[in-house]
Amino acid sequence: MKTVVFRLGYRPIRDKRVNTHLALVARAFGTSGMIMEDLDNGVVKAVRSVESRWGGKFFIQTRNWKSYLKDWKGIKIHLSMYGLPLDEVMEEIVFRDEDILVIVGAGKVPGDIYNLVDYNISIGTQPHSEISALAVFLDRLYKGKELDRDFNGKLRVIPSQRSKKFVRS
Amino acid sequence: MKTVVFRLGYRPIRDKRVNTHLALVARAFGTSGMIMEDLDNGVVKAVRSVESRWGGKFFIQTRNWKSYLKDWKGIKIHLSMYGLPLDEVMEEIVFRDEDILVIVGAGKVPGDIYNLVDYNISIGTQPHSEISALAVFLDRLYKGKELDRDFNGKLRVIPSQRSKKFVRS
Repeated sequence: MKTVVFRLGYRPIRDKRVNTHLALVARAFGTSGMIMEDLDNGVVKAVRSVESRWGGKFFIQTRNWKSYLKDWKGIKIHLSMYGLPLDEVMEEIVFRDEDILVIVGAGKVPGDIYNLVDYNISIGTQPHSEISALAVFLDRLYKGKELDRDFNGKLRVIPSQRSKKFVRS
Repeated sequence: MKTVVFRLGYRPIRDKRVNTHLALVARAFGTSGMIMEDLDNGVVKAVRSVESRWGGKFFIQTRNWKSYLKDWKGIKIHLSMYGLPLDEVMEEIVFRDEDILVIVGAGKVPGDIYNLVDYNISIGTQPHSEISALAVFLDRLYKGKELDRDFNGKLRVIPSQRSKKFVRS
């Protein structure tokens, strides 16, 4: 089951770091890549820099959201503070075992998104962050196993109670 | 079991939105408040604005991190990409049933933090975001129940498959 993130909406100054955090979460929590509507060089640079040290292969592309959603073969999920509670739909989504496009918005999203996806899912009903919404969704989807994935990077963390320990290969 | 977040480190321009997202996650995922080293008016304003509509009571304070940690009665946990895997320590933490201070850094943290806490916990061993690290930690700690909490706000979301539905009281 492949997952891809579509980052909908973009406010260049306000969302600069937020977009980077979002891409790093998408990568660290096991998705294949992130699509944006406009190119954000800061995001590409940050992800490539992480990749060169910590491994993995994560794609970043720019595409029109409507046509990308239309062409997506698999499940389309929009995360927000509205929609159905995560717990109510997760079992069905896992059971379907199809590729998943996860759409996360910045601020206001186009209203028609609610009708263009298969599921509108609410990660709680309080405002928080698309970064946390994505992380919790993927953590529940992959049942925590995404955190053990081997990225086969030059650097590798060695679990340690009292220090910042890692090895270089 | 009360939880409080300490936001360690602060880079005013770079972290502006990130700090706000972090505070909103702390609030939405059930902690009582967030402490920072320096006052960030943007964070206070954003949280108060959310609170006035969506309810709850979340405190924001500024304090020196070393003295705050020293005075904390309960468990001190530092989240990062180093430390022990979440799964290995969560059961013990829940079993201890004490108040928890969750420390999350921005970029580089002072090295002595690793010795001043009870647990260094790694949310995966890949770089991602303090926002996602905090959300996943709290989601695991509260076993998802934090997402159902009633904030008793003027606005309340009504779960809905196809629309942005809420009521005003």
